[in-house]
Amino acid sequence: MFANKKVIFRLSQYRQALFKFKELGFAKVFSDTLGDAIGVTSVQVRKDFSLFGITGNKRGGYQVDALIKNLQSILGKDQPQEVILVGAGDVGSALIKYKNFENESIKIVAGFDIDPAKINCKLRVPVLPMSDMGRFVRERGIKVGIIAVPDVAAQEVFDQMVACGIQGILNFAPIRFRGADGFVINNVNLQIEIENIIYFVNAMQKPANLIHGDPA
Amino acid sequence: MFANKKVIFRLSQYRQALFKFKELGFAKVFSDTLGDAIGVTSVQVRKDFSLFGITGNKRGGYQVDALIKNLQSILGKDQPQEVILVGAGDVGSALIKYKNFENESIKIVAGFDIDPAKINCKLRVPVLPMSDMGRFVRERGIKVGIIAVPDVAAQEVFDQMVACGIQGILNFAPIRFRGADGFVINNVNLQIEIENIIYFVNAMQKPANLIHGDPA
Repeated sequence: MFANKKVIFRLSQYRQALFKFKELGFAKVFSDTLGDAIGVTSVQVRKDFSLFGITGNKRGGYQVDALIKNLQSILGKDQPQEVILVGAGDVGSALIKYKNFENESIKIVAGFDIDPAKINCKLRVPVLPMSDMGRFVRERGIKVGIIAVPDVAAQEVFDQMVACGIQGILNFAPIRFRGADGFVINNVNLQIEIENIIYFVNAMQKPANLIHGDPA
Repeated sequence: MFANKKVIFRLSQYRQALFKFKELGFAKVFSDTLGDAIGVTSVQVRKDFSLFGITGNKRGGYQVDALIKNLQSILGKDQPQEVILVGAGDVGSALIKYKNFENESIKIVAGFDIDPAKINCKLRVPVLPMSDMGRFVRERGIKVGIIAVPDVAAQEVFDQMVACGIQGILNFAPIRFRGADGFVINNVNLQIEIENIIYFVNAMQKPANLIHGDPA
């Protein structure tokens, strides 16, 4: 990994916030306002931007338009990014239809599935047989894929994606891939996210001396 | 917050791994094996467990069944957890149908929406009018909710959830809530997850001296 995931995550959050400031008519924004919007300190905002050579002005803050343009370019959002998805079940289908991706210049160009009942070439985003994935990915030079298959199938799908040149994966299956060194993988584990909330909500109901774990 | 989110997140991951070890016929497991399964060191595994008074045996490791039972109890999974969801759009509907939740004793008992076209009381998980949420949540004593509405509606939904006693929220809207102190909120921002992957994949194509940011 070349850079810190958390910094890049915050750049995306700044960018989303800046679009809202722009809608509200702001031409300039200070680091403390931007920090408030995403829940970090102004020092953190300035530090994050300075890593990329972006500097504000003590009196005037940052120019909203210029900052957006800068972040767009850093985040590769100045051109649409084509992404494929494997697994057209409930989660996969929802992602294919998810309108927010297109607003964000992320374009899921095809889904793939092994289940013939899910194949449909006539959809706006076609769902194609899994056996077509390799050729499709290679021909279009696609580098990013989403895995939304059951956990028993996920490693095999991962291996196939890697074999055809995919370098970055958003993974919804609750497994850890073998042979993943050198690949960019973000895991979204929805069960664990909810389980985590349930733990803390239950913990709030208990007397303090029964609550375990480190302070946050 | 009473405890460290990351520790609890790892407990969930250990638990998922332990079920797989059990399926493979393991009666005992060592901290290094369990660490490998989720990508942490054996020292981390032992430290996490010792926070909750769980100790292994240097020669024999941990008993898989006893450890699962312990983690089930800590994570509140010894009884089903009822959850509601607001926003029966693409992502919300997928979550309602998501089978993995039920395996994990997480039960979405109702969805709510303001769109009359989405209301359907006859589904296995009914989708009810938003105006019914308060009464439903209070009557069933539900503490956990999922927000899957567009970002412009999310703050209002959050306020309504808080007003009827919800204490923990899994949020899919790309906003940061006002008045969120003392609530348990996990955010899943799908756009940012993909944006993050795209950044690092693009970064890999560039000469090293053009890549910015801290080392991970």
